[in-house]
Amino acid sequence: MFSAADSNFMAQALRLAELGRFTTSPNPNVGAVLVKNDQIIGRGYHRQAGGPHAEVFALREAGSEARGATCYVTLEPCSHHGRTPPCAEALVVAGVSRVVVAMQDPNPKVAGRGTALLKAAGIQVDIGLMAAEARAVNPGFLSRMERNRPYVQLKLAASLDGRTALANGDSKWLTSAAARADVQHYRAQSCAILSTATTVMADNARLNLRAEQLQLNISQLDTGELRQPKRVILDRNDNLDHNLALFKEGGEVIVCVSKLENARVLPNIARQIHCPLNTQAQFDLALLLEHLALREQINMLWVEAGATLAGALLQLNLVDELIVYLAPKLLGNTAQPLAVLPQFSVLAQVPQLYWSDVRMVGPDVRLTARLS
Amino acid sequence: MFSAADSNFMAQALRLAELGRFTTSPNPNVGAVLVKNDQIIGRGYHRQAGGPHAEVFALREAGSEARGATCYVTLEPCSHHGRTPPCAEALVVAGVSRVVVAMQDPNPKVAGRGTALLKAAGIQVDIGLMAAEARAVNPGFLSRMERNRPYVQLKLAASLDGRTALANGDSKWLTSAAARADVQHYRAQSCAILSTATTVMADNARLNLRAEQLQLNISQLDTGELRQPKRVILDRNDNLDHNLALFKEGGEVIVCVSKLENARVLPNIARQIHCPLNTQAQFDLALLLEHLALREQINMLWVEAGATLAGALLQLNLVDELIVYLAPKLLGNTAQPLAVLPQFSVLAQVPQLYWSDVRMVGPDVRLTARLS
Repeated sequence: MFSAADSNFMAQALRLAELGRFTTSPNPNVGAVLVKNDQIIGRGYHRQAGGPHAEVFALREAGSEARGATCYVTLEPCSHHGRTPPCAEALVVAGVSRVVVAMQDPNPKVAGRGTALLKAAGIQVDIGLMAAEARAVNPGFLSRMERNRPYVQLKLAASLDGRTALANGDSKWLTSAAARADVQHYRAQSCAILSTATTVMADNARLNLRAEQLQLNISQLDTGELRQPKRVILDRNDNLDHNLALFKEGGEVIVCVSKLENARVLPNIARQIHCPLNTQAQFDLALLLEHLALREQINMLWVEAGATLAGALLQLNLVDELIVYLAPKLLGNTAQPLAVLPQFSVLAQVPQLYWSDVRMVGPDVRLTARLS
Repeated sequence: MFSAADSNFMAQALRLAELGRFTTSPNPNVGAVLVKNDQIIGRGYHRQAGGPHAEVFALREAGSEARGATCYVTLEPCSHHGRTPPCAEALVVAGVSRVVVAMQDPNPKVAGRGTALLKAAGIQVDIGLMAAEARAVNPGFLSRMERNRPYVQLKLAASLDGRTALANGDSKWLTSAAARADVQHYRAQSCAILSTATTVMADNARLNLRAEQLQLNISQLDTGELRQPKRVILDRNDNLDHNLALFKEGGEVIVCVSKLENARVLPNIARQIHCPLNTQAQFDLALLLEHLALREQINMLWVEAGATLAGALLQLNLVDELIVYLAPKLLGNTAQPLAVLPQFSVLAQVPQLYWSDVRMVGPDVRLTARLS
């Protein structure tokens, strides 16, 4: 069904899709190329929610040449009238003769209707080329659509002996400026950052995106288009001081409290939400993640917190990826641990992961692990 | 003084030198090539103490062609009658016209006398080509000669959160079979393995070389030539049970005790040595290392031990290299620490290292760090 040329063109559509990763949310990343006589005559990617979809940019570039062309698109063309007209219709109107789709759109508003519309118009539709690669450009969107929760990346920074700070709390600076700049890339790709009142107050952390630290190699990207991720702060006891730097700049602050009746007047960029407690009087984190997906449209959630929240998320199997910056230092046995977990009695019980990426970031090592 | 061709030939001599790394100790690794009319006419490396030196193998291959040739050798040719006649004399007799030496031999028996002998015979001698690379093939020998102590490699195996075992001691198997096989390469390169009675008794550890686990890619190497490293076991309180697997197979066992008058009758492969205690009633590790260099001719020392010995060596700045196998697992805050160190109050006080190598070993990551 698919030729080597098909794969080649789809790979290019996938590279285009990635260009949207800092700007498209809550929409998915999508890329498209139009091909006629083995030549690319149009290309596009979805750049911003509310703006044109990938196929529209590609059709604009191709103009009347689109008639009889093949469109390679990384996600099923949409069929519904949202903020923009449906792309499937645009492809029909333009007279393309074949559409190759990497994967069906799990969005219930689409979910096969886009390809059905194309087929009904007599267009040849081939689905499933490089589907795994297409999934990989949309971990957050797919997680929200398929699991009703964000794709959760847990950021950790530790010494070689797995310690995050000295016993007295000193952790400035455990990791390098290069590692801290690298963190900005993850923040920039994330819809929200999850942390705790304890962490925010310890460092007077802003948890905002510092665009000037991003070393982006994406010529099309205007840093003015970058979003500030929302900051979701767990504050069970309503402790946050409103003079914190957190409230002075950056994206919206969502303060999770256990009792809304205690709600205080918050700074303009902040609002409180109520999150139920579990039987251990801790926030029900699974419910919180569901809320963030369904009510706040959070695709990618970036967690920067201490050992307690890290351990709780790991225990509940709510972490999809661990991003660990390992500094070449030794803090010793009295220093603070990376993750609070129950005391295991055999190694077979401990969380098993696999290393999915390992690289140097400045003088530190960045290890990426996924749950196996 | 040196041309690109010179560097090319010296690089080949260095590759030859490395071939001896499992067999030459306590002698240094040395490689040599003989070149005439830009062609290599002889090559050799030192393979085993007591056997011919690198230059001799190269001269044998070249035969009478050696007259007028250039010899590239990674370490100054020897000038003394040891178990073999001096190489400098052999080069003179063979009539080579130029000798390029990467570095002077720090061995006080040589230390410039080899090159002096060559110069006195009218041979052109150029010293210092790729000296840093030449040092890198002999870390152990150079450490013993220059610092009167072995080159110390500390092996650690830990989870992502820097833990070596569960609270109850369970650590089988934290790291993978691939990581454990990789350890065999380091053991094979080491003159001795340092550990403690506690560690040996906890696992009934043999700490021997298992040649069948080595995946050597060295066609010249007969695994029968591999040495079993000596095992140096710290046993302050004379606790070692002589029925341990340690005493059944492998290299000589040197048991360090604090009082020799308690000496027991030991199994054949074992002997006791006395090591003085410091003011904290712990073994004086600096003195022990000096003893191992000066009395036992230990070039490379491989340390496999728990958090206490690891921490003590680090504290005393006696570790040259840390080799850390990091398993993609999380053991939690109650599990056992990697290194016992004093409680620091600011990050600037902690041991600072740098990552000198990072790679995957099976499903684990192997991180190599050096003291900066």
